Amino acid sequence: MSDLTMARLQASMHRLLVPEAWPRPGLSPVNRALCWLIVLASAFAILETEEVVTGAAPRLFAVVETSFAVVFGAEYLARLYAAGADPRYRGVLGRLRYMLTPMALIDLAAILPLYIAASTTNPMLLRLCRLLRILRLAKLGRYSTAMRLVAEAVSTRRHELVLSVVLTAGTLLVAATLVYMFEAESQPQQFGSIPRAMWWAIVTLTTVGYGDVFPVTLGGRVLAGLTAIAGVALIAIPTGILAAAFSDAFQKQRAAEEAGRPKAD
Amino acid sequence: MSDLTMARLQASMHRLLVPEAWPRPGLSPVNRALCWLIVLASAFAILETEEVVTGAAPRLFAVVETSFAVVFGAEYLARLYAAGADPRYRGVLGRLRYMLTPMALIDLAAILPLYIAASTTNPMLLRLCRLLRILRLAKLGRYSTAMRLVAEAVSTRRHELVLSVVLTAGTLLVAATLVYMFEAESQPQQFGSIPRAMWWAIVTLTTVGYGDVFPVTLGGRVLAGLTAIAGVALIAIPTGILAAAFSDAFQKQRAAEEAGRPKAD
Amino acid sequence: MSDLTMARLQASMHRLLVPEAWPRPGLSPVNRALCWLIVLASAFAILETEEVVTGAAPRLFAVVETSFAVVFGAEYLARLYAAGADPRYRGVLGRLRYMLTPMALIDLAAILPLYIAASTTNPMLLRLCRLLRILRLAKLGRYSTAMRLVAEAVSTRRHELVLSVVLTAGTLLVAATLVYMFEAESQPQQFGSIPRAMWWAIVTLTTVGYGDVFPVTLGGRVLAGLTAIAGVALIAIPTGILAAAFSDAFQKQRAAEEAGRPKAD
Amino acid sequence: MSDLTMARLQASMHRLLVPEAWPRPGLSPVNRALCWLIVLASAFAILETEEVVTGAAPRLFAVVETSFAVVFGAEYLARLYAAGADPRYRGVLGRLRYMLTPMALIDLAAILPLYIAASTTNPMLLRLCRLLRILRLAKLGRYSTAMRLVAEAVSTRRHELVLSVVLTAGTLLVAATLVYMFEAESQPQQFGSIPRAMWWAIVTLTTVGYGDVFPVTLGGRVLAGLTAIAGVALIAIPTGILAAAFSDAFQKQRAAEEAGRPKAD
Repeated sequence: MSDLTMARLQASMHRLLVPEAWPRPGLSPVNRALCWLIVLASAFAILETEEVVTGAAPRLFAVVETSFAVVFGAEYLARLYAAGADPRYRGVLGRLRYMLTPMALIDLAAILPLYIAASTTNPMLLRLCRLLRILRLAKLGRYSTAMRLVAEAVSTRRHELVLSVVLTAGTLLVAATLVYMFEAESQPQQFGSIPRAMWWAIVTLTTVGYGDVFPVTLGGRVLAGLTAIAGVALIAIPTGILAAAFSDAFQKQRAAEEAGRPKAD
Repeated sequence: MSDLTMARLQASMHRLLVPEAWPRPGLSPVNRALCWLIVLASAFAILETEEVVTGAAPRLFAVVETSFAVVFGAEYLARLYAAGADPRYRGVLGRLRYMLTPMALIDLAAILPLYIAASTTNPMLLRLCRLLRILRLAKLGRYSTAMRLVAEAVSTRRHELVLSVVLTAGTLLVAATLVYMFEAESQPQQFGSIPRAMWWAIVTLTTVGYGDVFPVTLGGRVLAGLTAIAGVALIAIPTGILAAAFSDAFQKQRAAEEAGRPKAD
Repeated sequence: MSDLTMARLQASMHRLLVPEAWPRPGLSPVNRALCWLIVLASAFAILETEEVVTGAAPRLFAVVETSFAVVFGAEYLARLYAAGADPRYRGVLGRLRYMLTPMALIDLAAILPLYIAASTTNPMLLRLCRLLRILRLAKLGRYSTAMRLVAEAVSTRRHELVLSVVLTAGTLLVAATLVYMFEAESQPQQFGSIPRAMWWAIVTLTTVGYGDVFPVTLGGRVLAGLTAIAGVALIAIPTGILAAAFSDAFQKQRAAEEAGRPKAD
Repeated sequence: MSDLTMARLQASMHRLLVPEAWPRPGLSPVNRALCWLIVLASAFAILETEEVVTGAAPRLFAVVETSFAVVFGAEYLARLYAAGADPRYRGVLGRLRYMLTPMALIDLAAILPLYIAASTTNPMLLRLCRLLRILRLAKLGRYSTAMRLVAEAVSTRRHELVLSVVLTAGTLLVAATLVYMFEAESQPQQFGSIPRAMWWAIVTLTTVGYGDVFPVTLGGRVLAGLTAIAGVALIAIPTGILAAAFSDAFQKQRAAEEAGRPKAD
């Protein structure tokens, strides 16, 4: 192939694979197909952890997982090649620089598990591999303007959110310390130390209330009531902050869309 | 009867049965009576599933259920006949077209159960019939402007709501995968696979906290605390969005009411 | 005593006892003392139901309860007498009319229990008497402008709140019916009928999650997850509506206060 | 040392130790180091309550705790000396006055535990000492402008928050009294008195739902459903109020910052 043909191929691969390089609104057909493949592969990776399911068709899962590894491996190599169309990643050194970008590292992490899983019997490592397979979903982040919107909304109000986290942590600590004083004697297994009491405190403060631990003394129960009410009040703070932040962010986005696309849908 | 008498009968039935055709504000007396009958029939259908209740008066329930079937059957035929007053549903073909409208299908589905229930002993099918009887309540949707309002409010913010659902689904998946890594060994029955861990994740993320499954390892408990806090933050997002949407929708409705009815209540 | 002295006594009793008749801002000293007595008497009535407490000092509780009955009895007679200062309640017929006002009926209901409790051994009736003693707290409503504020805020948004209740009831019914279809066979005791399934549905939809009943089938668990998420969304609606309504009501109150009292605190 | 040198030393210690006296924005290096020490010491105090942890290295914890006591003792003496640079706390009487300020008392309370813990074997007193060690965190309050902000936001809406607390307390009382009427007979241990029933009421109203107590009668279950729904509505009120209050407070702070620091970060 001539150099020109090569350059043209690289340029069109770049257009098809890099969302920012696609000239029309939305995603390129290749990226749209990859999105669906990622969702499918993640669903398979989730199902694969359930022995009742894999036991029914062990061969099928092995074949499907290998196919996904081949497809995503090919995608990785194609992206590596197409990266050359971007002046920043030209040449061998440029490609190495590309391989160290967060997105390329996530892509790599999503391919590795198959090769590791094939050569190990350590159950913890196997579970880690399965986790990495699900990490493929993070690849979708590449395509998401919505995620960027969320990140911006949260980031503009980070001081307020940090403050509400600090308040919650303080309340958590006070509740755990006080319940430890009341309940340590009657329930040493559950409330015998402040770290143990913190399990109860977080479960109560978020109003989850599993019911595996709860106070039995009078003082402990009064405290539990106050902690639950404090939890409700503390939940109110980030709720209000996030609601306002999201409302703002969506309004800005709409204003930008209306200004940018005079006749778009 | 002369054709004119027939046409007049049909027109007045149409006025009485079709909410949009009623000339005065509110519902026609016939439709108001039908609303109460629907509520009553649904209450009976709910009570009927409880053997303690039906055992006390088995004949009564059979008689009442048959009466409701006769009344709603008559309503169905009357609506079918009255539909002819609308040019779209005139003639035999028009009537067939009417029978395939969503409302007419719901009406039919609410009558069928009696005939099916009388001729089957399959318990699953019997339970389905009872479900269909309760579906009669959906017939009330015909009369509801409020429901249309809700649907509009939700629909204008669907992008935001979809995004918050996606965020929740992502958090759910990450929480389930991580808890599976921590707890699979010590509680294989509850956390032995990611789909199993998802049951715990959804119960924790929504702060329901039944208490049938909860982590016991240190890592799992720290994760549970973070998941519960994430749940509280994620609940905050649709709360804010829906609150704003409803507030807007009700304001618009009031503005429209004030503009439309100069002297109305 | 001369008629004039009587009339003066009645007028000053009226000023001291009827909150609206007190010329200065706030409550009269008599009404302030009565407020504290009501709170104290209610606290005693609550403690009295706990045998551990009454067993320690049975005489004390009998004496205190009798004293409260005497004091509130005297208050009732004083109010009845003072009511004559109001033209509406003058004379014997007027007093009868006064006795039938809601506030006077609550006052009477709060005195009766002692006499009933002394002459019965029926445990249900005894418990009802204790409930009535706590009802004394409702007498505080007489003094509350805040309660009127709350009632107004809720009342201006009653259409929205009714709609959210209807939506919740509908979701509750659908969740109960579907879980009944999935779980009736495996857990007949808990999910064997729709009314039984409703206990699970309400506990899940409000995210209370006691953990006494929960689905065990796959379909039931998926449904439980969806129900919990629906619960979170449904909670969002009245939250937004009430928050906005209260915010409005407090702003109006402040505006009215600023307009009404040029130099007040 | 000459008097002038002493005065200079005292003045620079005052600048370094008292946050308000530091001329530049933010905290002085000494105070920043003390913040980290407080967090570290509190973390140690929490871990120390867990015998699994202290059993692994009992000497280490004793040494670390003594070191913290020495450091915070030295800090206390330094602050006492530096206080003389402030005209209010000059001389022996002024120092005594300084020792009675809330901050100095907290500082003292955070040093005492070591000496008490060394000379007692009473477990309740020992636990109280541990609590006091964690109280050191309150020393951080000295440095916090955010805490002042929160206190102001809550304080401007205190009437509204008090009203919502009163409403919650009233609902709590009504729910506890009614459930006591329904359930006292079938579950005397859990619902045999109103104070006992209040434990259930608070756990349900805050939607925590441990599941250790729940009604079993029909009336009790209907009441539980209504209580849970009331809880959701009551949670809505402080949520709305606090959200609005925080939103206001942060806006004011930003406006003040923009007005006060023309070129600051």
